[in-house]
Amino acid sequence: MQKYKVAIVGATGFTGSELVRILVNHPRIEITAITSESRVGECFSDVHPQFAGICDTVLIKAAEVSDQNTDLAFLALPHGVSMDYVETYKNQNFKIVDLSGDFRLSTPEVYSAWYPKAHTFPEGFETAVYGLPELNKKRIASARLTANPGCYPTSAILGLAPLLSAKMIDPDRIIIDSKSGVTGAGVKPGAVNHFSNVNDNFKAYGISTHRHTIEIKENAETLSGSAASIQFTPHLLPVDRGILSTIYARPAEEVSAEKIKRAFSDFYESEPFVRLRDTPPSIKQVRGTNYCDIFATFDETTGNIIVVSVIDNLVKGAAGQAVQNMNLMLGLDETLGLNQVPLQP
Amino acid sequence: MQKYKVAIVGATGFTGSELVRILVNHPRIEITAITSESRVGECFSDVHPQFAGICDTVLIKAAEVSDQNTDLAFLALPHGVSMDYVETYKNQNFKIVDLSGDFRLSTPEVYSAWYPKAHTFPEGFETAVYGLPELNKKRIASARLTANPGCYPTSAILGLAPLLSAKMIDPDRIIIDSKSGVTGAGVKPGAVNHFSNVNDNFKAYGISTHRHTIEIKENAETLSGSAASIQFTPHLLPVDRGILSTIYARPAEEVSAEKIKRAFSDFYESEPFVRLRDTPPSIKQVRGTNYCDIFATFDETTGNIIVVSVIDNLVKGAAGQAVQNMNLMLGLDETLGLNQVPLQP
Amino acid sequence: MQKYKVAIVGATGFTGSELVRILVNHPRIEITAITSESRVGECFSDVHPQFAGICDTVLIKAAEVSDQNTDLAFLALPHGVSMDYVETYKNQNFKIVDLSGDFRLSTPEVYSAWYPKAHTFPEGFETAVYGLPELNKKRIASARLTANPGCYPTSAILGLAPLLSAKMIDPDRIIIDSKSGVTGAGVKPGAVNHFSNVNDNFKAYGISTHRHTIEIKENAETLSGSAASIQFTPHLLPVDRGILSTIYARPAEEVSAEKIKRAFSDFYESEPFVRLRDTPPSIKQVRGTNYCDIFATFDETTGNIIVVSVIDNLVKGAAGQAVQNMNLMLGLDETLGLNQVPLQP
Amino acid sequence: MQKYKVAIVGATGFTGSELVRILVNHPRIEITAITSESRVGECFSDVHPQFAGICDTVLIKAAEVSDQNTDLAFLALPHGVSMDYVETYKNQNFKIVDLSGDFRLSTPEVYSAWYPKAHTFPEGFETAVYGLPELNKKRIASARLTANPGCYPTSAILGLAPLLSAKMIDPDRIIIDSKSGVTGAGVKPGAVNHFSNVNDNFKAYGISTHRHTIEIKENAETLSGSAASIQFTPHLLPVDRGILSTIYARPAEEVSAEKIKRAFSDFYESEPFVRLRDTPPSIKQVRGTNYCDIFATFDETTGNIIVVSVIDNLVKGAAGQAVQNMNLMLGLDETLGLNQVPLQP
Repeated sequence: MQKYKVAIVGATGFTGSELVRILVNHPRIEITAITSESRVGECFSDVHPQFAGICDTVLIKAAEVSDQNTDLAFLALPHGVSMDYVETYKNQNFKIVDLSGDFRLSTPEVYSAWYPKAHTFPEGFETAVYGLPELNKKRIASARLTANPGCYPTSAILGLAPLLSAKMIDPDRIIIDSKSGVTGAGVKPGAVNHFSNVNDNFKAYGISTHRHTIEIKENAETLSGSAASIQFTPHLLPVDRGILSTIYARPAEEVSAEKIKRAFSDFYESEPFVRLRDTPPSIKQVRGTNYCDIFATFDETTGNIIVVSVIDNLVKGAAGQAVQNMNLMLGLDETLGLNQVPLQP
Repeated sequence: MQKYKVAIVGATGFTGSELVRILVNHPRIEITAITSESRVGECFSDVHPQFAGICDTVLIKAAEVSDQNTDLAFLALPHGVSMDYVETYKNQNFKIVDLSGDFRLSTPEVYSAWYPKAHTFPEGFETAVYGLPELNKKRIASARLTANPGCYPTSAILGLAPLLSAKMIDPDRIIIDSKSGVTGAGVKPGAVNHFSNVNDNFKAYGISTHRHTIEIKENAETLSGSAASIQFTPHLLPVDRGILSTIYARPAEEVSAEKIKRAFSDFYESEPFVRLRDTPPSIKQVRGTNYCDIFATFDETTGNIIVVSVIDNLVKGAAGQAVQNMNLMLGLDETLGLNQVPLQP
Repeated sequence: MQKYKVAIVGATGFTGSELVRILVNHPRIEITAITSESRVGECFSDVHPQFAGICDTVLIKAAEVSDQNTDLAFLALPHGVSMDYVETYKNQNFKIVDLSGDFRLSTPEVYSAWYPKAHTFPEGFETAVYGLPELNKKRIASARLTANPGCYPTSAILGLAPLLSAKMIDPDRIIIDSKSGVTGAGVKPGAVNHFSNVNDNFKAYGISTHRHTIEIKENAETLSGSAASIQFTPHLLPVDRGILSTIYARPAEEVSAEKIKRAFSDFYESEPFVRLRDTPPSIKQVRGTNYCDIFATFDETTGNIIVVSVIDNLVKGAAGQAVQNMNLMLGLDETLGLNQVPLQP
Repeated sequence: MQKYKVAIVGATGFTGSELVRILVNHPRIEITAITSESRVGECFSDVHPQFAGICDTVLIKAAEVSDQNTDLAFLALPHGVSMDYVETYKNQNFKIVDLSGDFRLSTPEVYSAWYPKAHTFPEGFETAVYGLPELNKKRIASARLTANPGCYPTSAILGLAPLLSAKMIDPDRIIIDSKSGVTGAGVKPGAVNHFSNVNDNFKAYGISTHRHTIEIKENAETLSGSAASIQFTPHLLPVDRGILSTIYARPAEEVSAEKIKRAFSDFYESEPFVRLRDTPPSIKQVRGTNYCDIFATFDETTGNIIVVSVIDNLVKGAAGQAVQNMNLMLGLDETLGLNQVPLQP
């Protein structure tokens, strides 16, 4: 069967290597280009030695990607850089899945308020679709530019969507206590990812200021149709991969554990990557895969709804979701190439 | 100078070995007995090889501990077992620090509602003092039986006490999202502490049902003078030691970040083991020590007060606090023998 | 295309779950039975929750496996138990890959000298083939019973085979310093795999006595055609998966780094799962995959040959190699279903 | 009692913070200066937050250290930088313990052959004493400049000294397979210590080329009185602290396990920091302490002597040994201030 041609723009980071990990075994995809400005001319497997013999593609410059041999390009670039390439490629015919934060928010103004620079390609917002397939499947299918969601927002929004859309909870009193593995902080060495600062350690960071707060808030407001207040606290786990979000919400109506569970099972009935669990899930249960496992309950004593969701931040929180979006944008089965089994232990 | 004689009842667990780690260098203490029913006759360093040449005491049976050569006994025993020894020793003159949960709660009835068996020594509750020195220093100093607090409650109550006692927060809307290292689950091998179930993993457990909930609640009510509702969610970190509690509360009056911080600095002004921090602390910053590091702030956008507290669950959450209590009960300086420096990295 | 029917006997351990992880995506295999004596009637995903929605097969008893619906059975059972099932199934027509150590050695006598019990099915040795495909491909293809190699022996023999078969090294002076992840010690909780005994720790064990010593020695002697002396020292790494063996040997002739490398590239020229590296490999480079990565060099100063080999002990050291053997035994392409990409990070 | 005044030159690294961790509780030492060129004016606890309230000394420049208020200075500086400060301080009266590699080798020429630059202060070699107290106690006691040994060499030489000095082994056939925690690679962030490159991973590095090879070789030759050949292979463990060296040697005379053990117990009879063990030690058994635990045996089947030694690379392999040397140089009891108990778990 004919294969679609995809380019991966940005090869040196974790999301770049995850895209290749998934796509090399995708039955309908051929990787035609992998780019890196800093390591052009080297093999992909020189940068990521685990790929020796699996993907030895020679890295090219992003400017060389063209619609001659590209149906879709993934942008696995830092925030603030990605927008430039979306602009560069604006006259190319290929579709784009942007894994950065550059087009996730509602407007360039909101972007500038939370990210450290002004947006240089505001037109992009006109067509960009927020790429959370469980919410926006149809719009993604016809999008030319999909903004792949942030890792924390994916875990948070999937844990809240059934409750918000059914107006079962008060959108003004949501607390999201999230814990992420280290790969979320990127491949570039720094104090934040020095082994001895992370190993056998744990901390909170970015309290009240993390930029994923606004991404969660905007989606919560869209889902509920009213203003939302989001208390979002990220923490750094001594693990490579995985996000677990513990979410606390107040019911807006009379609820029970049973009713809560039913809201989730109805909402996610036909979703292949959401697994509802009867006990709180662990992050290793989804490691290496595109699953989001969710546990939801109601504490009668305190009157709180509690939801626990887990994802692999590099897969459902990044590259896997990007491939899921790609499948939708190319008219393929949403699950194609995403049949990885959790690596546990 | 004369040394006090102490016995450690229960040698095989983590709290037993931590007590020895601290007490062997305590300038006013001589360990006169270490007991183990299962390994009697062996050396303490046979059970814990790291102590070779440091503490090679031969283990005896708990029944052999007497007030002839004991000023104070630590009970490092499981819940439900400790109460029997408190009864056994009731006519002995030595004081007791009980590290189990058997005398932490208000009444035998509350105990039976949360622990899996009926209490067999209800008289113990008449004299037992809850051994959190930052709250009960004077009562501990004159206690014969001190109930050493649970690890999670220590981190939670120290993070809430200034706010509750000043009535700055609503006691009915407290959320405590806690994360603990594996040693909290004890030394006995089981699925919960199998390396491959913990390493590179993370999960919530005991949602709404963990027995430390009631211990926190009772103390919160004492501090605030009114009914409290505690949403307590424990999680299991892939680390040996350390608890970090992220606490969310609603102000009961107008507050600011500055006012919150001042409440903490006033309350803990003369406390040697509480360190107030300007940035969120990490668990390794207190590893191996009796410190509780606390960060507190107010989020103006959401209106939530957020407190992050960290302890070493085996030290301030168990053996270190027990030694702090011992110091008070023996009339010694509270900090004696507790000058360990955090082991970081 | 027609699918072969396979049974997995023994579902609760790590090798059982790894077999399922690999086989659920194998294009020519249908898992028709998974057995467990202790958890019969439960779902496979009850035992291994990561498989929810992926493999929910109900567990049956091993006695119910028959050649009606089985082309090949994997025995993922402990040493000493597996032999009983090989005997039980002796009149069944299906082929067997035995992942235990029961048929790896040359004779029942050698077995009894190294394993803790006498062998109860000595006839098995007559037909069993040692299932290291890189050495025994043809014999495996026609075997009815394949004895899947041990994890340490796989890493050691693949690191030595080119040198031994070319008689380039003295078989009497081989030192194998191996380091393994914890899953090698099995799923059953015990002191050896308690998180706090493993995390941030490292130790040697079984010096001179580990039973994989004889398995390596027998293969070394077959390869070299003369008596071998093997100094084998296993160590326990604080990781889930992976074995790295550092091998020291003395040349039996004049050698150079170049000549050593050529011996390896000649020997493994057509082997799909051996990757020769120019720098020492790390265990994460093969995590989750059937690769064995090897680095070999010669130190002119000391006159030693040094080989470093890495595998994933659960894949090339167990389940992956078993599937590779299965492919050969069923006449399939050796690599079918084994296209997993290393999970790094 | 009068306290000696010490300066710590170089505050930002792991050895700097370990020196403070040990010295703040040393009964005869006062830290009068801590220096940092890059963070002058900040508090030591700004750089290492775990020291808040324990050591808040303001950092000064190294040039401000003088013999007015200094009896001894520790140089916790990188290789190649330390030599400049030894020269700078050459007319000061205080003694120096240099923790770098600048004066560990026999001559400036040997230094230049293994380290990346020419030595700029060759006179230093005339007086420098190699600071391994178990070998050079008397010379250290009268030294003005002590070169604190490397971490790997400490573990290797202590594991070999009894055998080499008794001429029980062939110095020409020694293999040292060492495994170290990440702190050995320093505090500066880089790919080598990025959490995701280390966690759940393991690799060899610097095969045949690591500069500790020559340090081990020179000491082995001094001990044995003849030329030595050292095969030294370092590996990187996913732990913060600890080195385990597995040493293989060939007997030069008839030996037995008993005879080997006796050689060790005779040699280390009066050494307070060497603990001989009957089973192979683990690195956590010495974590945070100045102990070196050693297991030695003889394998009759292979004819090899096997020694396993463990140290904490930051303590006996760096700061602890430096304090031990300081004690000797100041005429204090060698063990003063070094009574830390292993932090396990």
